[in-house]
Amino acid sequence: MSSSHMNSSSSSSNSNNNSTMDLLTLENPVFCCYLFWATVLVVKMLLMSLLTALQRFRYKLLGLVPLALRRKVFPNEEDLFFKNIEVQFDDPRVERVRRAHRNDMENILPYFIMALIYVCTNPNPMIACNLFRLAAIARIVHTLVYAVVAVPQPSRILAFATMLIITFYMAAVVALRTLRFI
Amino acid sequence: MSSSHMNSSSSSSNSNNNSTMDLLTLENPVFCCYLFWATVLVVKMLLMSLLTALQRFRYKLLGLVPLALRRKVFPNEEDLFFKNIEVQFDDPRVERVRRAHRNDMENILPYFIMALIYVCTNPNPMIACNLFRLAAIARIVHTLVYAVVAVPQPSRILAFATMLIITFYMAAVVALRTLRFI
Amino acid sequence: MSSSHMNSSSSSSNSNNNSTMDLLTLENPVFCCYLFWATVLVVKMLLMSLLTALQRFRYKLLGLVPLALRRKVFPNEEDLFFKNIEVQFDDPRVERVRRAHRNDMENILPYFIMALIYVCTNPNPMIACNLFRLAAIARIVHTLVYAVVAVPQPSRILAFATMLIITFYMAAVVALRTLRFI
Repeated sequence: MSSSHMNSSSSSSNSNNNSTMDLLTLENPVFCCYLFWATVLVVKMLLMSLLTALQRFRYKLLGLVPLALRRKVFPNEEDLFFKNIEVQFDDPRVERVRRAHRNDMENILPYFIMALIYVCTNPNPMIACNLFRLAAIARIVHTLVYAVVAVPQPSRILAFATMLIITFYMAAVVALRTLRFI
Repeated sequence: MSSSHMNSSSSSSNSNNNSTMDLLTLENPVFCCYLFWATVLVVKMLLMSLLTALQRFRYKLLGLVPLALRRKVFPNEEDLFFKNIEVQFDDPRVERVRRAHRNDMENILPYFIMALIYVCTNPNPMIACNLFRLAAIARIVHTLVYAVVAVPQPSRILAFATMLIITFYMAAVVALRTLRFI
Repeated sequence: MSSSHMNSSSSSSNSNNNSTMDLLTLENPVFCCYLFWATVLVVKMLLMSLLTALQRFRYKLLGLVPLALRRKVFPNEEDLFFKNIEVQFDDPRVERVRRAHRNDMENILPYFIMALIYVCTNPNPMIACNLFRLAAIARIVHTLVYAVVAVPQPSRILAFATMLIITFYMAAVVALRTLRFI
């Protein structure tokens, strides 16, 4: 089986039946690579929720700061576990994590769809796998320099642009392959 | 037909060729279960838009409140159907629905991708279907206790954590299966 | 192997065998049409990020406005390339683009999943392709009348409702097909 797969994936562009059928299965190494790195990015995104919660609870968990100085950053009234604090929306550290999280949603979620579509067009395995790796690492760097420690520009813009350009490249490849179905 | 399918899905973990090919088709009951519950969650998310609009229009539709007291909660100038009201951004009930909606996007959209990926790894049908059911019901409960009626904690945190843990479990399963494609 | 698969998928839901197996491949014209229009929408969404950045930089790039009047609309301190400006969050033009972007995320991302699921149920090709075209064009119109030039209502509500109704229709089709897997 593996030898037949080698053969079919070498004739990339005019996909014969075998190669097309294997695209979205675990026999396709490109798809497996997509699965792995998409999983990494999903976990990274979900950790942003926990990072936000951590920022909200930080001083409370430490318990070292007097009540009057504690950060009061819960958006809903039922979230106030202490009676002497109030609803608040504009803590700078919490808002920074939330902007990073929103940026993740704006860029990573369309990327998931775009990369899955890209796998369906049977791309060159070497190019595709390296794009998946590069995009995932770029977004992890983006989170580190945005939400964890605020590094001066242009570190964040470069990390941001990396995934953006990769997604546009995938879009161009797919659009050219499917243009006659407009 | 069903007997041949039974055979292929019984050898779940070391997926032979037949079973792998059926994963993303309507012959795979796990995939059908995913389709159904993903559809339920998509509908739930889209209803959040309508719920936001409903909150914005509430008093206007009733038409019982004097103009001076009506809620003026439209973010864009062209949305003002009445001339004597102004653009406003901070109505607490509207903002609560919007936070719930944002939380949906942060959690449900990555879950869609993660669960689809999880289906591709040919999981145990019993476990997978129950995870899909549990995750969808947890998010419906989350919306009810967050956006519809504000129930005291920890109801919302439990509903939130349920889907989060399910997604992390799926991520762990997929990552272990695809680790050699890093 | 292929013949046994042929048999099993022929009894699917009167979808004959060939068509079911080809659903998520480039041999399926409906899937290709989905790929093309999903790509268009992904590109449109990513351009929103650039449009936001453009709005932030607008006067700086022109360089014609005195410093005191320049728009100071960067949310993070490290983004301030000029020393005499401050962090700001409430520029109306930037916020309008961001609301449009958020609305995209709320509607287009669930649509991607819903439409992909819809393709898996082997819909009527004529209906499906036209729905994909109509939904994509409606969202492009939505962006134009929301973020680029502010057109009076109900233009935006109509564009918004078009995709919403299409997504609900797809959800209804899928739910009816997969109801027994609840």
